[in-house]
Amino acid sequence: MSMSTLVVSRDDIEHALGGADVLGAMESAFMAYSGKRAIVPPVGELLFDNPPGDAHIKYGYIKGDDFFVIKVATGFYDNPSKGLPANSGLMLVFDARTGLPSAVLLDEGHLTNVRTAAAGAVSAQHLAPPRIHRIGICGTGVQARLQLQQLAEVTECREALVWGRSSESTSAYCEAMSRLGFRVEAAKSTWEITRSCNLIVTATIASDPILAAADVQAGTHITAMGSDTPHKNELEPQLLATADLVVADSISQCMERGEIHHALHHSGFSVGQVVELGAVVAGDAEGRTSESQITICDLTGVAVQDIEICKAVLKNLPYTQLG
Amino acid sequence: MSMSTLVVSRDDIEHALGGADVLGAMESAFMAYSGKRAIVPPVGELLFDNPPGDAHIKYGYIKGDDFFVIKVATGFYDNPSKGLPANSGLMLVFDARTGLPSAVLLDEGHLTNVRTAAAGAVSAQHLAPPRIHRIGICGTGVQARLQLQQLAEVTECREALVWGRSSESTSAYCEAMSRLGFRVEAAKSTWEITRSCNLIVTATIASDPILAAADVQAGTHITAMGSDTPHKNELEPQLLATADLVVADSISQCMERGEIHHALHHSGFSVGQVVELGAVVAGDAEGRTSESQITICDLTGVAVQDIEICKAVLKNLPYTQLG
Repeated sequence: MSMSTLVVSRDDIEHALGGADVLGAMESAFMAYSGKRAIVPPVGELLFDNPPGDAHIKYGYIKGDDFFVIKVATGFYDNPSKGLPANSGLMLVFDARTGLPSAVLLDEGHLTNVRTAAAGAVSAQHLAPPRIHRIGICGTGVQARLQLQQLAEVTECREALVWGRSSESTSAYCEAMSRLGFRVEAAKSTWEITRSCNLIVTATIASDPILAAADVQAGTHITAMGSDTPHKNELEPQLLATADLVVADSISQCMERGEIHHALHHSGFSVGQVVELGAVVAGDAEGRTSESQITICDLTGVAVQDIEICKAVLKNLPYTQLG
Repeated sequence: MSMSTLVVSRDDIEHALGGADVLGAMESAFMAYSGKRAIVPPVGELLFDNPPGDAHIKYGYIKGDDFFVIKVATGFYDNPSKGLPANSGLMLVFDARTGLPSAVLLDEGHLTNVRTAAAGAVSAQHLAPPRIHRIGICGTGVQARLQLQQLAEVTECREALVWGRSSESTSAYCEAMSRLGFRVEAAKSTWEITRSCNLIVTATIASDPILAAADVQAGTHITAMGSDTPHKNELEPQLLATADLVVADSISQCMERGEIHHALHHSGFSVGQVVELGAVVAGDAEGRTSESQITICDLTGVAVQDIEICKAVLKNLPYTQLG
């Protein structure tokens, strides 16, 4: 017998995303994760030396779901010099009642980018102050773009300030984001960002803090999403120690990587102060309680986001009805 | 940009296998594994309760290769009652220099079946006595069929004796194998197998030994491939303790599952007696040294087999030249 496994191209995936409630999917993802309804084993990893690269396998399912998902994400950092994207990958969807492969999503890593950016929007929706006067973006890469794009779903603010290490990429960022309806200016330093923005997204690969505790003003929300390894670090540890609220996508994962991981190695901060984003979304933990608080959300990426964005894509494919 | 990932159907995979040197690929696989040239991280696993099922993710690469491989294998044991195969899965091939997905092999688990059976043939080729007068098969399932089929590549013997627990499935086995050119009779007990066969393959899901040490005659080679979990057990531990040579596909894996695992819990047998199949194939370890020896090969399945069979399929696809 021959089974029918749906093979979905990137074009069809992007089309399906257009009709999908990606933010709602991410809310469900974080609630399932924090509600202990997600089965997510440790990430599989392959490392390569020559050329340098890595492949990560994230997989799991939400109890009671019709599907389980296996995602492969690759990063080969010499690729751009060959005219190829550094990141790629695909997602596999299997029927959780039969184990048969339902769909192969040839997304080239796009779904990872979108789900990561959408998590930033969920973070802002639940933690940012009600009136956002200017959005600050640290970084000018793919995530810096997608984060701002996704924020348009949760705020009417279209004023943005971007900081990048290269003036070329910063100019390119301003141009690209202007076309999406934002008024974007380039900041000379991250201090300009902290001075004028009350919603800040850090989306860099910094390994030394780029935001200083002393600079961040009352009434600011920061989503730190650039650091996803033990090494990377975007926020000064003192900033987490003095913040009114620190939120993690996954407390256990953030203890090993991301901003919280770094802050735990400094005095004045303990993991007991951290709540999970899914608990805030579900109303099981308190989020921001006043406009003047400083809130921080540390995003390191969890497989449950991959599961939910796959489900959202499958639901919105025009030519099939799976599950 | 859109990358081209080749999606290969089961029909095309079977066609490619027809032109592939699968046994040579398995020899390469075991030599790479035993020669420490394979990077094979621990297997990923997902378990399901209702209905009962599992998914395993095996992945890795051989140093210096152009590709890395990720295999997903599923087993959902209520499937046959729904008219579906219990086992399924697929294999993913990625470019090891760019991380881009090269091919999705929608093999429905067929490549796992073939590589597992081909390992049995490699075992027989390197360990069986030179004159095989009758082949004994314990079990009547897919592997019992494929094992005998693959053995036709390494011996001219077409006399076979099969033992199964159900007379219906044993008859069906005899019929199916007759069509492939074997003269197959049904044995009433495994004692009949040990008495008349000098090449025996055990391919059952037994959790209590089906072959007794006292019954096995001098000059016999046994390939035990049914047990791939800590629980399953086909050979009496004493049989390994008294055998002249015990060979494992992976010593480290066989210490945790398969026949060797069970024998290690009994006196008179130690892991120091075990050599790896890849070392025998490479000529780095001694195989059978006389016609009268009893040799045993314990196969539990290693990811390097998946890597090599994928490469063999890719090389033999008519419509593309990858790598």
